[in-house]
Amino acid sequence: MPVLGQNQYGKAEVRVVRVAREGAVHHLKDLNVSIALSGDMADVHHFGANTHVLPTDTAKNTVYAFAKEYGIESAEQFGIHLARHFVSSQPPIHRARIRIEEYGWERISAADTGDDTTGGHSFVRRGGETRLCEITHDGERWQVVSGLRDLTVMNATDSEFWGYAKDKYTTLQEAYDRILATDVSARWRHAWESDDQAAPSWDGSYERVKKSILRAFCATYSYSLQQTLYAMGASVIEESPGIEEIRFSLPNKHHFLVDLEAFGLSNDREVYVAADRPYGLIEATVLRNGAVAAIPVDLTNV
Amino acid sequence: MPVLGQNQYGKAEVRVVRVAREGAVHHLKDLNVSIALSGDMADVHHFGANTHVLPTDTAKNTVYAFAKEYGIESAEQFGIHLARHFVSSQPPIHRARIRIEEYGWERISAADTGDDTTGGHSFVRRGGETRLCEITHDGERWQVVSGLRDLTVMNATDSEFWGYAKDKYTTLQEAYDRILATDVSARWRHAWESDDQAAPSWDGSYERVKKSILRAFCATYSYSLQQTLYAMGASVIEESPGIEEIRFSLPNKHHFLVDLEAFGLSNDREVYVAADRPYGLIEATVLRNGAVAAIPVDLTNV
Amino acid sequence: MPVLGQNQYGKAEVRVVRVAREGAVHHLKDLNVSIALSGDMADVHHFGANTHVLPTDTAKNTVYAFAKEYGIESAEQFGIHLARHFVSSQPPIHRARIRIEEYGWERISAADTGDDTTGGHSFVRRGGETRLCEITHDGERWQVVSGLRDLTVMNATDSEFWGYAKDKYTTLQEAYDRILATDVSARWRHAWESDDQAAPSWDGSYERVKKSILRAFCATYSYSLQQTLYAMGASVIEESPGIEEIRFSLPNKHHFLVDLEAFGLSNDREVYVAADRPYGLIEATVLRNGAVAAIPVDLTNV
Amino acid sequence: MPVLGQNQYGKAEVRVVRVAREGAVHHLKDLNVSIALSGDMADVHHFGANTHVLPTDTAKNTVYAFAKEYGIESAEQFGIHLARHFVSSQPPIHRARIRIEEYGWERISAADTGDDTTGGHSFVRRGGETRLCEITHDGERWQVVSGLRDLTVMNATDSEFWGYAKDKYTTLQEAYDRILATDVSARWRHAWESDDQAAPSWDGSYERVKKSILRAFCATYSYSLQQTLYAMGASVIEESPGIEEIRFSLPNKHHFLVDLEAFGLSNDREVYVAADRPYGLIEATVLRNGAVAAIPVDLTNV
Repeated sequence: MPVLGQNQYGKAEVRVVRVAREGAVHHLKDLNVSIALSGDMADVHHFGANTHVLPTDTAKNTVYAFAKEYGIESAEQFGIHLARHFVSSQPPIHRARIRIEEYGWERISAADTGDDTTGGHSFVRRGGETRLCEITHDGERWQVVSGLRDLTVMNATDSEFWGYAKDKYTTLQEAYDRILATDVSARWRHAWESDDQAAPSWDGSYERVKKSILRAFCATYSYSLQQTLYAMGASVIEESPGIEEIRFSLPNKHHFLVDLEAFGLSNDREVYVAADRPYGLIEATVLRNGAVAAIPVDLTNV
Repeated sequence: MPVLGQNQYGKAEVRVVRVAREGAVHHLKDLNVSIALSGDMADVHHFGANTHVLPTDTAKNTVYAFAKEYGIESAEQFGIHLARHFVSSQPPIHRARIRIEEYGWERISAADTGDDTTGGHSFVRRGGETRLCEITHDGERWQVVSGLRDLTVMNATDSEFWGYAKDKYTTLQEAYDRILATDVSARWRHAWESDDQAAPSWDGSYERVKKSILRAFCATYSYSLQQTLYAMGASVIEESPGIEEIRFSLPNKHHFLVDLEAFGLSNDREVYVAADRPYGLIEATVLRNGAVAAIPVDLTNV
Repeated sequence: MPVLGQNQYGKAEVRVVRVAREGAVHHLKDLNVSIALSGDMADVHHFGANTHVLPTDTAKNTVYAFAKEYGIESAEQFGIHLARHFVSSQPPIHRARIRIEEYGWERISAADTGDDTTGGHSFVRRGGETRLCEITHDGERWQVVSGLRDLTVMNATDSEFWGYAKDKYTTLQEAYDRILATDVSARWRHAWESDDQAAPSWDGSYERVKKSILRAFCATYSYSLQQTLYAMGASVIEESPGIEEIRFSLPNKHHFLVDLEAFGLSNDREVYVAADRPYGLIEATVLRNGAVAAIPVDLTNV
Repeated sequence: MPVLGQNQYGKAEVRVVRVAREGAVHHLKDLNVSIALSGDMADVHHFGANTHVLPTDTAKNTVYAFAKEYGIESAEQFGIHLARHFVSSQPPIHRARIRIEEYGWERISAADTGDDTTGGHSFVRRGGETRLCEITHDGERWQVVSGLRDLTVMNATDSEFWGYAKDKYTTLQEAYDRILATDVSARWRHAWESDDQAAPSWDGSYERVKKSILRAFCATYSYSLQQTLYAMGASVIEESPGIEEIRFSLPNKHHFLVDLEAFGLSNDREVYVAADRPYGLIEATVLRNGAVAAIPVDLTNV
C-alpha cells in the first residue's frame, strides 16, 4: 500500500485587523495568518476518519479569539501564542507552523494633510516591503524565522560585472558601471528556541536586520550581486547576535542601457530599459559560524 | 460593409528609467509609458496597407530617445513632448494619447541605514500610491488628466452607516461606529488646454491634490462613503483652482467586526475581518461649477 | 459649490455558484456579479443622508436570492432579472448596470479518467477565455453587451509586416513571415433593447460570435494586426444579425525570432522569444452600417 | 567570519517558443525555463571574483541555442539536455537544477470555427492546468520531478465532513452533503535517475498521472479532503510504476451554502458563495513503499 509521508493541514490566509484604542489615538495591526498542523493524521488520510482533525474553521476562529485574548504585540509573539495553543491543547497535533504576513500602516500626519488637527485614528497603508514570520513548535522547541519581501532597492552606480567565465554561448559585454537593482526577499532564523531563554524584542530585531541589509547594500561597491548578497548577510550575522542564519533570494532586476546611437544620440548612463523577464536569480544562505542551516532552499511568500 | 469606428494603436507599457547624475548625487525617474495613436487609419484596417502606420516599435524607440533629448521633468511634461511629436510629425496621425504610470523611489538615508556616509546613489522603491497621468492632444488642444491609484487609507472610527433604504432582501445591521477603509483611485482634469496658457507646476499640483484628498478623508465624520468621496472631491476643486473635475473609484474595503460571543468574549471594536470580495464600489465625479465632464465613467489603470 | 456629476454605487464581485441537480447529473453556473446603481443620490453625497441608498449588502443578498428564485439560465438573462428588479423596485434608482464574468466548467468525462463509470457530478474548470456581459437598464430600454477576454490565439505563419511609415526613430526590420499572437478581448452590443422584442438566445449568440472571431483569425492572411482585427469584427457583424457593434482590444504579443548566428546556428522561423512588455496594443470598433457606437473606448474586465 | 551556505544562481523565466513546421502543419512548444547552478562559488560571494561565474545571460542564450540544436521533445527531455550541459562543460558548476513551466496550445479545429478549411498553423492557448517539471543533475545522478498546478476540480456532491475534533473555538456545523473543490497542485518524482536506465516516455507518464488524479477525485466518496488527497496519491503510485512519490498541495476552495431563510426561500444545495480567503490548505506526500521522500514540503510554482 502506498505510504503516507509528511502531511499538514490548516487554514491559510486568515486576515485579521486589530485596533487598540487609547482614547483618540488608535493603533493598528493588520495580519495575514496561515496555520499548518501535523501529527497523528493517518486515519483521516486512509479512511476519512476525522476524529483527530480539528477543523480548519476552528483554526480560523482561534486567530480571531486570540487577537482579543492576547492582543497582537508583534506578529512573532502572536504566532507563538497560536502554535503553543494547538500543540498543547490537541494531543493528536504534534507540530504547528504559523506563517504571518504583516501589512504596515502609518498614521496620517499633519505633514500629509497640511492640517495639524489631523486626528489619531486615520491611517495610510505603507508601501515598501512586507514583513514576514514563521513560527514552528513541536511542544518543546521553537523555531522562529523572520523575514521580509519586496524591499526594492537600486544602486545607480558602484556596480561592475566583468571577468566572468565565457563559453561559446556567451555574448554579454563586460560592464564597468551598471545599475544594480533587486527586490530583497530574506528570511532569518533566530537563536531563540526555548521558553527557558529570554525572547528577543521581535520588533527591535526586525529594525536592526533591515538596517544592516540596507547599509550593506549601500556601502558595497559591487562586482557581482553574489558579493552584495554575502555582504548583506554577513552584516546581519555580525550585527545581530541573536540571528543564526539568513537566506536571500535576489532577482537581478536588469536595467539595460538603451543604444541610442541609431538616433544620433549618446547615452552616458542616462536612459535604461527596466526589463521584466528573464531575470538573474541569486540565492544563498549566510550562517553564523557553527550554525546548522534550517531555512529551506526555496523561500515561500506566505 | 461593416463600418470602422473609433480606433487607435500604439505601444503599451514601455518601461523607461532615467538617471540624472549631479556628481555623486543621482536622481531617478521610473515610468511606464503607453502610447495610443489615432488618425487616418482606414487602409490598414481594410487592406493591411501600412503606409500610414508608424510602427509601435518606433513609438517605443521615441520614448527612449526623448528621455535623452528632453529628460523627464515630470510625467506630464514628458507626455506632452511625446504627444506633440507624434501629431506634428506624422500627418496621418490626428490624435495622440499618452498614459504614464510613475513609480516612486526615495533616496536611502542615514535614518534607514544608521550610517551617515550613505551615498547619493542608493534608492529604495517607495510603496503607497502610484502616480498616473494621461495626455491627449489633437494638434491644437490639450487635455491633461493626472491621477493616482492604490492610496489605501483607513479611519478606525468616525464612520457610521444607518438610515438607509430597506427591502425584503435587506439584512444589514445599522452601524454607529465602523471602520472605513478604501483604496483611493482618482483622476483629475486640469484646466490647462492650450500652449498659449502657462502650464501648471505638475509636481506641485499633484502634491496639493493629494493633500486635499487626505485631509478631507481624515476630517470628514462619515455617514457614508459617498459623503467622504464628495468631501474629498470638493476639497480638491476648492483648493486647486487649476482643476476642473475629479473622478473617484472607491472600493469599500469592508472590515467586519468578528462575533466572539460564542467564545465568551466581547469585541468592543477591536478585532475585525479584512474581507476581500465582494466589496462595495462607490464612484463619482465632482466638477467645478460650469465645467463639462470629460473623464470617463470607468477609470483605467494604465 | 462643487457640482456632483455622474455617480454610481453597488456591490462588486459577488461570487455565486449555482448547482442544478437532475438526479445524478448536475449542472454548474459560476458567476462573478458586479452591480452599479445610479439615480437620485445627491443627498447621500452632500449630507451623508442614506434614505435613498439601498445598501450594497442588500444588492449582494439579491444576487443569491435571485439565483434561487430565477435560476441562472445564462449570465445575460440573470443580469436582466437583477437590473429590472433594482430599477423597478427602488424609485430613487433610475439606472442599473450589471456586469458578470462567467467561469466555465466541463464535466469530467471517461476520456479524462479512462473510467466510464465517472459520474455526472464531477467537473474541471475550463481554461481559455472568460465570458463577460454587461446589462444596462433605465426602466425602459435595455443595453446588452456581451464579450470575452483572454482568448489567446496564435498564427505560426501567414503574417507579414512591411511598407509602414518610417521616421528617424524607426529601426524595425520588415517582416515577411512572422508569428501573430494576441489575447482577444472583445465586447459586442446586441440590437435587442426592448421587452417588446424577442430576446436572442444568449448562449447561441455567444457561440456564433466566438466562431466568427476564430474563423476570421485563422483565415486572414495578415499584413497587420489591424487588418486581422477588422476581419474578425466584420465577420461578427456579417454573421450575427443581432449584433450592432463590436470592439476589440488586441495586444500584439510579440514573438521575436532569436538571432542564433553568434552560435553558428541558423534560425529559420524555429526559435522565438515570447516577450512580455512592451507590447503593441490595437483597439478598434466595427459597426453595422447605421449603428451608433455605444461601447466605450476603454474596455474594462469586470 | 559568517559562513556561506547553500547557494545557487542562474537565469529565471526564460520564455522560449519553438515552432516545428511539417509543411502546412506546425507544432508548438511554449516553455518558461529557470536555471539554477551551484558549485565552487565561494570567491564570487566573498570577493566579487567572477572567474567561476558563467553569466546568467549565457544561461539564457543556451536555452535558445538548445531549442534549435536539440528541439523540444518534452520539457523534461529539454531540461535534461540543459542540466547535463552546464555540469559537464563548466568545471566549477557541480549541480544544475532546471525548472520548466509548459503552456499548452491546441490547434484551432473545424469544430472551433465551423470551417473545415482551417489550416494547420492556427492555435488557441489551452486553459486549465500548467504542466511543470524540475530536473536536477550533479554529473552522475538525475532527479526528475514532474507536476502540474491549477487543475481546478469540483465534486458537486459525494462529500461530507463530520465527526471532527471540537474545542471551545469550534462553531462549524457538520456537513452531510457539501461541495468539494480544489486547485490541484502536485509534484511527482520519477524512479529514473541514471543514464544507464531507459528513460520513461515523459509525455505518456504525464497523461497517465493526470488520469489517475482525475479518476480518484471523481471516484472517491469523500469524508475529508485529506482522504481524497491520499486516494489521488495512492492511485498515482499504484498505476504508474515509474513514480516513487507524489506531493499535493490542495486548497479547500470553500463553497458555502447561502442561508436564504431570511428571504423566505429554501436552499436545498443550490446556491453557494464561492469564497476566496481564508481557505483550508491540505498538503501531503504519498510514497511507494520503501521510497525516501525528496520532494520539499513547500511546493513552488516555477
